Amino acid sequence: MLKKIIAEFIGTSFLLMVIVGSGIMGESLSSDEGLILLFNTIATGAGLIVLIWIFEPFSGAHFNPSVTLLFLMKKQINIIESIYFISAQVTGAITGVILANLMFDLPSIEISEKVRSGTHIYLSELIATFGLLLTISIISVKNYKAIAPSVGLYITAAYWFTSSTSFANPVVSLARSFTNTFTGIYPDNIIYFITMQIIAVPIVFFVSELLLKE
Amino acid sequence: MLKKIIAEFIGTSFLLMVIVGSGIMGESLSSDEGLILLFNTIATGAGLIVLIWIFEPFSGAHFNPSVTLLFLMKKQINIIESIYFISAQVTGAITGVILANLMFDLPSIEISEKVRSGTHIYLSELIATFGLLLTISIISVKNYKAIAPSVGLYITAAYWFTSSTSFANPVVSLARSFTNTFTGIYPDNIIYFITMQIIAVPIVFFVSELLLKE
Amino acid sequence: MLKKIIAEFIGTSFLLMVIVGSGIMGESLSSDEGLILLFNTIATGAGLIVLIWIFEPFSGAHFNPSVTLLFLMKKQINIIESIYFISAQVTGAITGVILANLMFDLPSIEISEKVRSGTHIYLSELIATFGLLLTISIISVKNYKAIAPSVGLYITAAYWFTSSTSFANPVVSLARSFTNTFTGIYPDNIIYFITMQIIAVPIVFFVSELLLKE
Amino acid sequence: MLKKIIAEFIGTSFLLMVIVGSGIMGESLSSDEGLILLFNTIATGAGLIVLIWIFEPFSGAHFNPSVTLLFLMKKQINIIESIYFISAQVTGAITGVILANLMFDLPSIEISEKVRSGTHIYLSELIATFGLLLTISIISVKNYKAIAPSVGLYITAAYWFTSSTSFANPVVSLARSFTNTFTGIYPDNIIYFITMQIIAVPIVFFVSELLLKE
Repeated sequence: MLKKIIAEFIGTSFLLMVIVGSGIMGESLSSDEGLILLFNTIATGAGLIVLIWIFEPFSGAHFNPSVTLLFLMKKQINIIESIYFISAQVTGAITGVILANLMFDLPSIEISEKVRSGTHIYLSELIATFGLLLTISIISVKNYKAIAPSVGLYITAAYWFTSSTSFANPVVSLARSFTNTFTGIYPDNIIYFITMQIIAVPIVFFVSELLLKE
Repeated sequence: MLKKIIAEFIGTSFLLMVIVGSGIMGESLSSDEGLILLFNTIATGAGLIVLIWIFEPFSGAHFNPSVTLLFLMKKQINIIESIYFISAQVTGAITGVILANLMFDLPSIEISEKVRSGTHIYLSELIATFGLLLTISIISVKNYKAIAPSVGLYITAAYWFTSSTSFANPVVSLARSFTNTFTGIYPDNIIYFITMQIIAVPIVFFVSELLLKE
Repeated sequence: MLKKIIAEFIGTSFLLMVIVGSGIMGESLSSDEGLILLFNTIATGAGLIVLIWIFEPFSGAHFNPSVTLLFLMKKQINIIESIYFISAQVTGAITGVILANLMFDLPSIEISEKVRSGTHIYLSELIATFGLLLTISIISVKNYKAIAPSVGLYITAAYWFTSSTSFANPVVSLARSFTNTFTGIYPDNIIYFITMQIIAVPIVFFVSELLLKE
Repeated sequence: MLKKIIAEFIGTSFLLMVIVGSGIMGESLSSDEGLILLFNTIATGAGLIVLIWIFEPFSGAHFNPSVTLLFLMKKQINIIESIYFISAQVTGAITGVILANLMFDLPSIEISEKVRSGTHIYLSELIATFGLLLTISIISVKNYKAIAPSVGLYITAAYWFTSSTSFANPVVSLARSFTNTFTGIYPDNIIYFITMQIIAVPIVFFVSELLLKE
């Protein structure tokens, strides 16, 4: 269990460093919003693949409570383990944002003022999370060796095809409120993001059961 | 059969969300036409690879009537199945465009005014589809494990080396007329695109038989 | 033998369409020279990987007389075959440039006015070709499954780290003189490029023998 | 042993040509700092993957004294070998910078004036190296086939999520002081970079032992 907690903690921490840090770097080098999102995309996609390759052998590399909940519904993890996983993800994510802020000489914690709201944004977050979880649910059964590139490539696409830029992860949504930079999110919007990210779990469970049943 | 229909429907729907959504996102963030096509390319290439990895075990992940017709000529699918496949592709594609429009707070359906015409554009579409189908026809026999990255990388290149930006898919051509954004196509031009995309099928059948016969 | 000739012809033809076509597309959409080379790079890298995956089972996917000469020195191909290969490469390359020009509504053949000269450029071409051939020579023995991505990724890097943007291929050098667009080359410079591309062959043969001998 | 030295020498030399050369090319084509770092990233990520694929069968493809020291702590290499490895890396790295300068018609050696200093930069370099070595330490045991793409993708992400752009390699830090271009580093800053890159070694050794022990 200790290895699992370490893996989820370090992995989620690096995930947030990659997301938040690359957004800050992008903002500091370019003024074109499209380019900044591109830099953010390339770093996140590449980073996710490596992080999953590294930590998958220890914890399955969830880094995401929605993923942990999906595997709980699938009975591949129990309730106690889920609590440990989600705790490690929350503390890892916040640690990651703090380290990203510090690496770029910013206050360790700031509150984001970046508003991300509107029904279309929440619809987008529902679709984004549906796609991410469906990817994981199917690929982890049918093509396990491709799990890391699948997730990295899905997020690469999803940063662009959804209007919310695909947070698709409750602890990412929470932690990103602690940086007032490119990837931040105004705290009042988080609850809507997390709601959508959790609603997606049973929907994906149902659809993937349909596809995976013999 | 139900699984195949679900797979083709969801897969084609996500394919269109990726293509159309990333075009809208790109347009909203940058003014450089080259950058917008780059964003569109990266999202489409990455998205296609994941979608094929997810849905290939269920339906073969055609998402494209030209591909379905090619496998019909190769007798790997029968006429009834083909009709189901193409129906799922058409409805999936239109659903995808509607969802993309809604995610970006646009009317669910608009008619595109983006003219894409000229003999050189149609020649380009013929070459684009020839290349896509040849990739699928050869790789699915000789190197099946590489089918998903092959298609994703082919389209990545083809968005740039053809003057039509490689639609190479009749239902994509049809559905993209329902969004008046970066990836749209003026309805009158569709018939020429689809004609080229269908003419390519027997040509590829002939060339790949030549290469694949013992 | 017919399959080999068809494979080298179609493959080299598509390679040139990718290189030249993506350069024209880039020029028409952006004015930033760096971005145009980026578009050119992404298309070429992605295209090369797919083309090698498709045609490798038939001809080994040389598409390049320097590669053919290297395998001739390694005695993996004989002199007669080499002549057929190089003939298919030359005619394929020129066909590809013509098709690229036509797809973009340009005269089928134009003579490039883009001067690429200077000792540092020729040194760059020598290093570029050395790296490409060393990649192929070692990977084809030690890690054959990675041959296609190796070549694609090498060229992706080499477009940027060499001042000549790495032609690294005599028929590519020749054919690119027939388009007066981004990827063109002034005919008088070709002979220096080809000289460097051929000098690299025995050097790589020697270095890779040293590394590969038991 | 000779093969190992040749592999480390040529590999490190090409690594520096890729890093330094692509920075010079980027600077000469674009004025957007973000784009230049993007070009540098794509070339370095792609180049690293190929270089590791080529030279891993001969020397393990360290190209980096911190990696060599880590394997020394892990007792997978002895002290004598380490000295040979690091000597080949130092001379290879300097040779690579000289060749990059010459390919772009610059003096073979210049001293960089690019200041890279500050506690946050050094923290960044510590995290960057920790991540790189953890990637190598875990993947080389748990998922060896993915070692080359892991390192390439890690560096792709790390160029963006760290404020130092992730040198993460003592000989890279040293050699980059010999070019007064985009990727240069003012000589006085090197010692802090190298200190962080060496401190990371025992930390990674400890963390990876914890994760890898039975």
